[in-house]
Amino acid sequence: MASSMKSFVDVAPGSQFPIQNLPFGVFRPSSGATPRPGVAIGDSVVDLSVLSDAGLFSGPLLSNSTCFSQTSLNAFMALGRPAWKEARVTLQKLLSADEPTLRDNDELRSKAIIPMSKVKMEMPAVIGDYTDFFSSKEHATNTGTIFRSKELALPANWLHVPIGYHGRASSVVISGTDIRRPRGQTAPPDGKKSPEFKPSAVLDFELEMAVFAGPGNELGTTVSVDDAPNHIFGFVIMNDWSARDIQKWEYVPLGPFLGKSFGTTISPWIVTLEALEPFICDAPVQDPPALPYLTEKKRFTYDIPLQVLDSMPTACSSH
Amino acid sequence: MASSMKSFVDVAPGSQFPIQNLPFGVFRPSSGATPRPGVAIGDSVVDLSVLSDAGLFSGPLLSNSTCFSQTSLNAFMALGRPAWKEARVTLQKLLSADEPTLRDNDELRSKAIIPMSKVKMEMPAVIGDYTDFFSSKEHATNTGTIFRSKELALPANWLHVPIGYHGRASSVVISGTDIRRPRGQTAPPDGKKSPEFKPSAVLDFELEMAVFAGPGNELGTTVSVDDAPNHIFGFVIMNDWSARDIQKWEYVPLGPFLGKSFGTTISPWIVTLEALEPFICDAPVQDPPALPYLTEKKRFTYDIPLQVLDSMPTACSSH
Repeated sequence: MASSMKSFVDVAPGSQFPIQNLPFGVFRPSSGATPRPGVAIGDSVVDLSVLSDAGLFSGPLLSNSTCFSQTSLNAFMALGRPAWKEARVTLQKLLSADEPTLRDNDELRSKAIIPMSKVKMEMPAVIGDYTDFFSSKEHATNTGTIFRSKELALPANWLHVPIGYHGRASSVVISGTDIRRPRGQTAPPDGKKSPEFKPSAVLDFELEMAVFAGPGNELGTTVSVDDAPNHIFGFVIMNDWSARDIQKWEYVPLGPFLGKSFGTTISPWIVTLEALEPFICDAPVQDPPALPYLTEKKRFTYDIPLQVLDSMPTACSSH
Repeated sequence: MASSMKSFVDVAPGSQFPIQNLPFGVFRPSSGATPRPGVAIGDSVVDLSVLSDAGLFSGPLLSNSTCFSQTSLNAFMALGRPAWKEARVTLQKLLSADEPTLRDNDELRSKAIIPMSKVKMEMPAVIGDYTDFFSSKEHATNTGTIFRSKELALPANWLHVPIGYHGRASSVVISGTDIRRPRGQTAPPDGKKSPEFKPSAVLDFELEMAVFAGPGNELGTTVSVDDAPNHIFGFVIMNDWSARDIQKWEYVPLGPFLGKSFGTTISPWIVTLEALEPFICDAPVQDPPALPYLTEKKRFTYDIPLQVLDSMPTACSSH
């Protein structure tokens, strides 16, 4: 889609949500209302349940679907890439400056397009499971340095196989949710035999990207690396809050557990692969090369500047 | 309840499912039918949706509940221990030899009590997450010996803190489901630099107990060890199938992942804490003693003989 495309909805210059983005999320228009799917544009949220009820998803895959009348995006995500593309094409057309259907229908427009400041964002999907990977060499090396030493930082297997663990799906929450500093067991202090139970003194945060996977696959079947894009609905920003002192005592030999299970924060808007296409760039060369089953026909990555606003409070409460 | 209590339903001597047990599960009475909750008795399954529709759950907590009209036990499990006890008391009364309500109502009885050979068992609950613990010193030592050495087998932290990891909830399946031998990456063979990708050559199985937790708790709150029984709905037998060669290469430093994610088998009937009361016995003495937050007021465990029938095929297929 042309980068010059414009919407009739006001979008401030430099907004993260131009018509070229259109990320998906789930929101409540008011506090008592039922959660429903939406997309973000400028400082507004478009209520997909309203557009769906009005029959505006008229493409072959979505015209008879109730996926936008659900309280989560799971049903929509289960439909797969062709339906995701159809939704995007439909929405970009409906929201474009030269399309009268929604633009010139005052009643429908005021019902469907809501100021973002008035809505409450909810979890976009019911998360069946979540896996956390060491996705960059720098990250794996940094974390290895925290727990071991510079020399032993990068495990040999990292160069060959994606190293990950299952995180706690039930404590994934939307950005802005309060996270309580956990109490937990930490290693015996120097000269002592007994470990301690206390509020974590080494709370850490990380800036990570997370993927929402869509249609799933049957138990016992595989997904080839080249087919991965058909399973990736989109990306959010994520932080698996880490209590490094608890983690350090518990993580050998079964990996991170309570030190990372007390809360995992994600941004509420899922940015689709289509919206990220302009940011595609060459992937770093793998050395040593990946085994054939991990070698993609087209190798690429995304170049996206991300920023952390350091606004940690100077005093933290704990229980 | 008296161990001499008898049901009007035939129960063969030595059956695992006398009226004293009454484990909960989810079944389909025929292949096209909707899954619904049931309890096992003898060689029969009692359809709880039928009893509920007939108004036979007349206690204060269940009389207005739709929990037995659901396709999983999640709604029932969310109600908590008092409702679980009420259901058990109601069912033991309805099924006892001297209670005419169901016994003498031919039409209702034939609708509600179905030969187990005719039903298909389904997953009893939608599993939000699953955690696998090293729950016995022997198990932790055996596994440590497989991966390290007899001397380094038991990690120091095991003596002080429950060591566990999150398993893959989406591949938990009912006993009898085919599990495909996984392909995966294994460590470089002696003298080679590159790892291999091949069907696992070291498939292992374990006999474990698993717990279904019920009502849950709010993010950021804790459950005391003494309150644990109010969260434990019941037990099943479990096997997290293990590909030890894949696990050995992947598990440092983030723990087991693909080597245990290809399938986890559970028995279909959840045996309640109440049914296990006759098997309570003293717990082994902990040495060193647990920290205060892990010290229970009443310490006990269960003495239950379990058996593995070794019927592994002599030839296994893989893909």
